Amino acid sequence: ALGLDGFIVPHADEHQNEYLPPSAQRLTWLTGFTGSAGAAIVTANRAVIFVDGRYTLQVRDQVDMAVFETAHFNDHPPADWLKANVTPGQVIGFDPWMHTRGQAKKLDEAVTAAGGRLVPVEPNPIDGLWTDRPAPPLAPIVEQPLALAGEAAADKIARIATAISAAKADAALLVQADAIAWLYNIRGGDTAHTPLPLAFSLVPAAGRPTLFVDGRKLSNQERARLEDLAQVREPSDLLTALGQCGGQRVLIDSAFVAEKLAAALTAAGATLVETTDPVSLPRARKNAAEIAGARAAHVRDGAAMARFLAWFDTEAPKGHLDEIAVATALEGFRMATGSLKDLSFDTISGAGPNGAIVHYRVTRDTNRPVDQNSLFLIDSGGQYQDGTTDVTRTLVVGTPTDEMRDRFTRVLKGMIALSRVRFPKGTTGAHLDILARHALWTAGLDYDHGTGHGVGSYLGVHEGPQRISKTGHVALEPGMFLSNEPGYYKTGAFGIRIENLVIVTEPTPIEGGERPMMAFETLTLVPIDRRGLMLDLLTPDEIAWLDAYHARVRTEIGPLLSSPDADWLAAATRPLRETT
Amino acid sequence: ALGLDGFIVPHADEHQNEYLPPSAQRLTWLTGFTGSAGAAIVTANRAVIFVDGRYTLQVRDQVDMAVFETAHFNDHPPADWLKANVTPGQVIGFDPWMHTRGQAKKLDEAVTAAGGRLVPVEPNPIDGLWTDRPAPPLAPIVEQPLALAGEAAADKIARIATAISAAKADAALLVQADAIAWLYNIRGGDTAHTPLPLAFSLVPAAGRPTLFVDGRKLSNQERARLEDLAQVREPSDLLTALGQCGGQRVLIDSAFVAEKLAAALTAAGATLVETTDPVSLPRARKNAAEIAGARAAHVRDGAAMARFLAWFDTEAPKGHLDEIAVATALEGFRMATGSLKDLSFDTISGAGPNGAIVHYRVTRDTNRPVDQNSLFLIDSGGQYQDGTTDVTRTLVVGTPTDEMRDRFTRVLKGMIALSRVRFPKGTTGAHLDILARHALWTAGLDYDHGTGHGVGSYLGVHEGPQRISKTGHVALEPGMFLSNEPGYYKTGAFGIRIENLVIVTEPTPIEGGERPMMAFETLTLVPIDRRGLMLDLLTPDEIAWLDAYHARVRTEIGPLLSSPDADWLAAATRPLRETT
Repeated sequence: ALGLDGFIVPHADEHQNEYLPPSAQRLTWLTGFTGSAGAAIVTANRAVIFVDGRYTLQVRDQVDMAVFETAHFNDHPPADWLKANVTPGQVIGFDPWMHTRGQAKKLDEAVTAAGGRLVPVEPNPIDGLWTDRPAPPLAPIVEQPLALAGEAAADKIARIATAISAAKADAALLVQADAIAWLYNIRGGDTAHTPLPLAFSLVPAAGRPTLFVDGRKLSNQERARLEDLAQVREPSDLLTALGQCGGQRVLIDSAFVAEKLAAALTAAGATLVETTDPVSLPRARKNAAEIAGARAAHVRDGAAMARFLAWFDTEAPKGHLDEIAVATALEGFRMATGSLKDLSFDTISGAGPNGAIVHYRVTRDTNRPVDQNSLFLIDSGGQYQDGTTDVTRTLVVGTPTDEMRDRFTRVLKGMIALSRVRFPKGTTGAHLDILARHALWTAGLDYDHGTGHGVGSYLGVHEGPQRISKTGHVALEPGMFLSNEPGYYKTGAFGIRIENLVIVTEPTPIEGGERPMMAFETLTLVPIDRRGLMLDLLTPDEIAWLDAYHARVRTEIGPLLSSPDADWLAAATRPLRETT
Repeated sequence: ALGLDGFIVPHADEHQNEYLPPSAQRLTWLTGFTGSAGAAIVTANRAVIFVDGRYTLQVRDQVDMAVFETAHFNDHPPADWLKANVTPGQVIGFDPWMHTRGQAKKLDEAVTAAGGRLVPVEPNPIDGLWTDRPAPPLAPIVEQPLALAGEAAADKIARIATAISAAKADAALLVQADAIAWLYNIRGGDTAHTPLPLAFSLVPAAGRPTLFVDGRKLSNQERARLEDLAQVREPSDLLTALGQCGGQRVLIDSAFVAEKLAAALTAAGATLVETTDPVSLPRARKNAAEIAGARAAHVRDGAAMARFLAWFDTEAPKGHLDEIAVATALEGFRMATGSLKDLSFDTISGAGPNGAIVHYRVTRDTNRPVDQNSLFLIDSGGQYQDGTTDVTRTLVVGTPTDEMRDRFTRVLKGMIALSRVRFPKGTTGAHLDILARHALWTAGLDYDHGTGHGVGSYLGVHEGPQRISKTGHVALEPGMFLSNEPGYYKTGAFGIRIENLVIVTEPTPIEGGERPMMAFETLTLVPIDRRGLMLDLLTPDEIAWLDAYHARVRTEIGPLLSSPDADWLAAATRPLRETT
């Protein structure tokens, strides 16, 4: 009816959020697929769903394979499919709010190369068919207190205005919810697991910014505070405001800004300055208050984890636990802190072979018992107002095999190597990544995920731009938070991952050292299961690191525990040498 | 007289050679500067010479500082200078043969941003003033025998034609002398230290290529052989041939192809396909014959190095050696093999503090005696018809200080770490680089150069695209040759570098390993000076590696030596434990 030969449905919203509000889950409505990344293309006679390697099994369970073909999201992405399958003269539609300027450009090149035409379609045709579509979220917006944010919003705005000026732009259009949350010192609740307020902002190099946010999310008090900082308008005013940018140079990050908004700027006669979101790096370099908050959150979270681990060690041998029971119990221990705002993400609770599924999420159908003589992988985290945590431990139930211990020890060697490294200015995560893999490579082993992601301060548990991976080309800087999480996965058998969060620091120079070096300070304070170790594989330096780490865990979280948890902690953190 | 407000003089020729023929050394003629990289900009009232950190001292000795200002070639390159200093309306000239398409684009953007205009100028105005300019080189071209090249030129041309077709181009324009030498299995002598024939080639995706080469370099026999492969024309015909490319898609590598040639193609109505030179990767992946040749060359070169080291150990304690005497002696030992075609580069022969100057070249003015209780750094190599060598050793004269031994051992630990690493497909030099630095970083130390460069097969001792450095983003592949050369430099005191060449191999999988891994096989066979070691800093694995390496050196080059050199070798390669 729209004169289209095909339409593209991505897993995306207007802000390129990691967790989509229910109202934006159009791919799930269309296909049944609930994974965190993917897309579909529907033509008159074909329907294709694109998912990555994490979801090849899940997609078959959730999507009607009589209707949908599957394709690999990374190896054969939608643009490649369009290039190969569009025939000359065909018209392919896309929703310009759901695709970034960068993505739209790629799709357009592909369709054009095939002789077709890519056209924006509004409103999204799915919305007319989706009769029970949930309303957009309207969670209240609250201030993130200065004591935790560490820098007044007015000062942040002034800093970003200077950066916009330095990029020779007159203004910047911000669309990432975590960028706006950071800039205005606000938190919301429009997406799962992350205290994000959906909003847009236009920040000029000189003058007063505009915040486009649904007024129903603002109390009078919060509106008054924000109006001190910015003009507050409805999101429906955004296009009008962009229409008034004629003659201006407007900075956008093409990896995040929707094609709709980029096109509106161009149509208004604005010149686009396409570069990195000016908030990214300032947000990534945490200040002293954010670092203090993260430390406090990790002491609190570490104590909850210790209680959980003590409980697990008591209950697991009894043989009645399953994955859901374990995840539920852990959530209970975190809730009991009285400070938990939300989990950082759905807990990964993987027994035995399920631990080998990297992004496993337990369901009633997949729920496995915790067997004896097996490994149990638990990856979880909490959102606290002072900090976001993310920790993985691999727990030994009964007696592990030599193979399990060999792999466990090699994974830990990688984590320790990163924990101990010193590195000069300019070093990126791509340079450091090998340290986490070296002990595995030596044995002909590896893992198929990055080693570390950036972490927000009571914001996204995944936050850019820094990362430790083969493609992490951003230089690490003091104050950045990262995860350090090597792993090993034996399909159908067991999975191992050991994850701490770390801060990039500038430690006291080594005596005789000539150059300033950076290092990682570990934030996470949770014992590592000594029963998984093969001590002969550890060097004296590695043993010393683990003993010092455990001593620190005991010192920092011990005072929060009472017997019998305190006794469990003392045993779990005693020096390794005492056991040999 | 030409209506210009300024003119740019780079260190470059039409082929972007590393070593320029004398006729192309216009920067040296203009300024006196003889370094291997740099540029000058001359305006009506200013003259600026741009050199990098290696040459900040040298430029002051060679260039009249009353006439020239200096600028940093990398931190403040010519484009930045032009952007800051050109005034609106000014016209800046450049020779379009000397700047690549990529460089010309950057210069044009800079001059345009400043309100000026960049214009190509031909002929190069220097050539009219340089009355004693040498004639262009005309070294005879000889065939590289199939037994050494390992693949017939016709087969290589067919492979490259397929690659050109895969890039959706109708033809490729090749300008790099080593690309053409590889493709046609020819060697020449138009540049110092590298057997390169200056030539161009236009290779179609289908049909007969054209080789543009000065006919005076060809014997009748070699001309006949080349005419079997290609149409052979004079370089002066190149522009005419490009003028006939209208309507074609022509592949060029903008990092190497002169702006002159790119502009000629565009003017003719050709469409440029700007991508990597299609010869780069095939040339880098050495075949079995090239690998066998390299092994043979390294046995021969290793024996010459051993004779030299034995001589050095006898003569240095007598106190009469200096840098020039050492370099001359080493060249003599290589000449005595009877197979040396040329040195791979001017030998770096650095005594004491001169060893800390990374790209030091001894002159009569800087020549230092070889002092007692010092370190001597010698970096050298030979061009043999079967292979190119490049080796650095740091030699101990008398008794080293503890600081020297600490640094020497850390540098060696880095070299051993790279020598032993196993790594999966897709790993780049940027990922591996840290292994060579880790032991130095731990002590707050580092070095300011890459860890390894690609090496040719009787071609350039520096050859792309692979490299081990923070910016080495090309995946390593079996058959690639690389150097492995970490270092440490204490300005004014001493320098340490230890360098072996290695081949990327696919070793027998480790028992229990799950993934195919690559590794490095060491080519260089030269003892490492055990007197520089601090054994307590080496792990048992590192000691085992060095002992095994020395045993292999003894086995492979021992048979070529007779007493007293053989006795020296036996002592130099005995297991480390025997000395402790």
